[in-house]
Amino acid sequence: MKKINLLGSTGSIGTQTLDVIRSHPDQFEMMAMSFGKNSDIGSHQANEFRPEVISVADTETAVKLKKLLDYNPRILTGSEGLSEAACEPADMLVNAVMGRIGLEPTLQAIEHGMDIAIANKETLVTAGHLVTKAAMRNGVKLLPVDSEHSAIFQCLHGNIEKEVSQLILTASGGSFRDFKREELKGVTVKQALNHPNWSMGAKITIDSASMMNKGLEVIEARWLFDMPYDLINVILHRESIVHSMVEYIDGSVLAHMGTPDMRVPIQYALSHPMRLDLNGGQRLKLWEVGKLHFEEMDFERFRLLKLAYDAGKEGGTAPTVLNAANEAAVSLFLKDQIHFLDIETIVERALNDHNHVQEPSLEQIIDVDLNIRTAIERDKK
Amino acid sequence: MKKINLLGSTGSIGTQTLDVIRSHPDQFEMMAMSFGKNSDIGSHQANEFRPEVISVADTETAVKLKKLLDYNPRILTGSEGLSEAACEPADMLVNAVMGRIGLEPTLQAIEHGMDIAIANKETLVTAGHLVTKAAMRNGVKLLPVDSEHSAIFQCLHGNIEKEVSQLILTASGGSFRDFKREELKGVTVKQALNHPNWSMGAKITIDSASMMNKGLEVIEARWLFDMPYDLINVILHRESIVHSMVEYIDGSVLAHMGTPDMRVPIQYALSHPMRLDLNGGQRLKLWEVGKLHFEEMDFERFRLLKLAYDAGKEGGTAPTVLNAANEAAVSLFLKDQIHFLDIETIVERALNDHNHVQEPSLEQIIDVDLNIRTAIERDKK
Repeated sequence: MKKINLLGSTGSIGTQTLDVIRSHPDQFEMMAMSFGKNSDIGSHQANEFRPEVISVADTETAVKLKKLLDYNPRILTGSEGLSEAACEPADMLVNAVMGRIGLEPTLQAIEHGMDIAIANKETLVTAGHLVTKAAMRNGVKLLPVDSEHSAIFQCLHGNIEKEVSQLILTASGGSFRDFKREELKGVTVKQALNHPNWSMGAKITIDSASMMNKGLEVIEARWLFDMPYDLINVILHRESIVHSMVEYIDGSVLAHMGTPDMRVPIQYALSHPMRLDLNGGQRLKLWEVGKLHFEEMDFERFRLLKLAYDAGKEGGTAPTVLNAANEAAVSLFLKDQIHFLDIETIVERALNDHNHVQEPSLEQIIDVDLNIRTAIERDKK
Repeated sequence: MKKINLLGSTGSIGTQTLDVIRSHPDQFEMMAMSFGKNSDIGSHQANEFRPEVISVADTETAVKLKKLLDYNPRILTGSEGLSEAACEPADMLVNAVMGRIGLEPTLQAIEHGMDIAIANKETLVTAGHLVTKAAMRNGVKLLPVDSEHSAIFQCLHGNIEKEVSQLILTASGGSFRDFKREELKGVTVKQALNHPNWSMGAKITIDSASMMNKGLEVIEARWLFDMPYDLINVILHRESIVHSMVEYIDGSVLAHMGTPDMRVPIQYALSHPMRLDLNGGQRLKLWEVGKLHFEEMDFERFRLLKLAYDAGKEGGTAPTVLNAANEAAVSLFLKDQIHFLDIETIVERALNDHNHVQEPSLEQIIDVDLNIRTAIERDKK
């Protein structure tokens, strides 16, 4: 029985993680969970999975939750509560919160010797050097949950690292893949949230439309697989059937395919190094798909991807700035306060303006992150 | 330095095996080689790679060869010579001869403790139970050279056997993939030899056009990977970029991709478990390929594939009969003595007529094989 702590239980990855746990009650057990303010869904989940510890955003939510529960767990609040829930004794932390706030709980769970199923890519983007060093020092595994990284992880499995010639991430192109740059000027939030293949949370869907999501994934891949940026490439693949690939020095390319179903990579992270039956999941029928399309990535069209590569190569606080500026800008876009293309401009300006620190400490990262967000929100007012 | 014996050096797989050896002179060394009657090419190869032992078809060829050599190897002839060359002390036998005659040298090399790179699929089809048992008993590896089996071998690597839900072999469809059954009646040898993706020997190109090649590969897969026929499937894939796939119980499908270049699987068989640089080989550029197509296999259209599955499931001498009848029929077709669709009729009749033996010995297999060939050639006269 693997004991699981889950942060972000009511989000897209969170609910699908619970689907996986529900379909394998003999394999997994929930010890602690967290969510923000959605006490309706959160209380249902808690009543079903009965974790001993639940962390929520604030006291108001805690009071609401308590009334809806039919048992008596320990209820915590705020960022301290989040970290405490993360560190509840367990085998694995599934970190499915959105954004930079996932960083501290991840680092603390690592110090408690827990393996991390990492759905919170911002954690690795903003502080990859700290997270990977801590994981190494504590002998814990970082298991990818993103479908692309799970694909690469599986295609690397059993092979020899120095025989890899490149990692190839696939990108569906997001909601606006058939739009020219000029056409992006007037796009609405509703249009941006309409992803062609995947049903996901709002922030990641916007990031997919802007291709920043792929940029964050490139940086995530650099840390998860210890690969130089020159050996991480991106290819457009509309169908999201090939989830990503690894090319070897002998010309062999191993690819991971499947239906676009996040429960597959989530389950693999939880069950690794074993595989479990995909209860109720749909199997890939390639003859029904019929055609798979591949196109070269256009870095002029998708400028945020170029900015992400540049920030990644620059290293130090540059990815922290990239991520913080993007989170702040996407938040403004979702509130209809800026245009879609302003996200690019805001991220680029933040990268140009910032004072680079090469090997930032956790405190410096938190500081830079906060300053960037504050500046962007202030400029908007 | 890995010491190699190569049977069938002047054929398509043979010459490409020598390409691989040539491009890695620090890794591989030729100990013995064999070819049939092509002393022009064979003598060039021998003068370059200088094996100590060379086996050829007959004394006439041996005399010609001797004159063309600039050194003094031991020259052998006939099937005894072939087996002796196979068993020359070495680490690995690459068996790239065409047809059933590859069987005895393979079995003898296995008894001498040599790993086998198996390009001669007829060996496994006609006597899979004997070959795999001998390999097990002698602790030698059977390494696939066919691109499909190499693909599956690589997609299985590092994974757990009981977690496999199916093997999926891809088939390009061969020279006549766009022909309806009616249109097959008048096809010529020249048309049949025009394979869309791969440049190969005559027999395998005809087998590709009739889909018997895929049938032989299904039986080969059954023995190489110890999988029941129900878990071995075939899908049409025109581009021959996805070389084959493995589906796992969690819905993950691992695929091996690459340009259609036989040097990749040959080299992997030789270098396994390592990979070596593909010197001079072209890397896969999926964005240049643009589209990959997949279609369901039509067992009515490709009846030989259905017959191969049936023979495989029947087991015993049925696959021996399937293979012998096919070899004899293809040989007649290549000599313009029968029509293309007669191959099917001959194979089907042979399967219906034969007296089944469930666990045939080597002697019984050789006997059945010879009887089938004799009968088919006699009927023709």
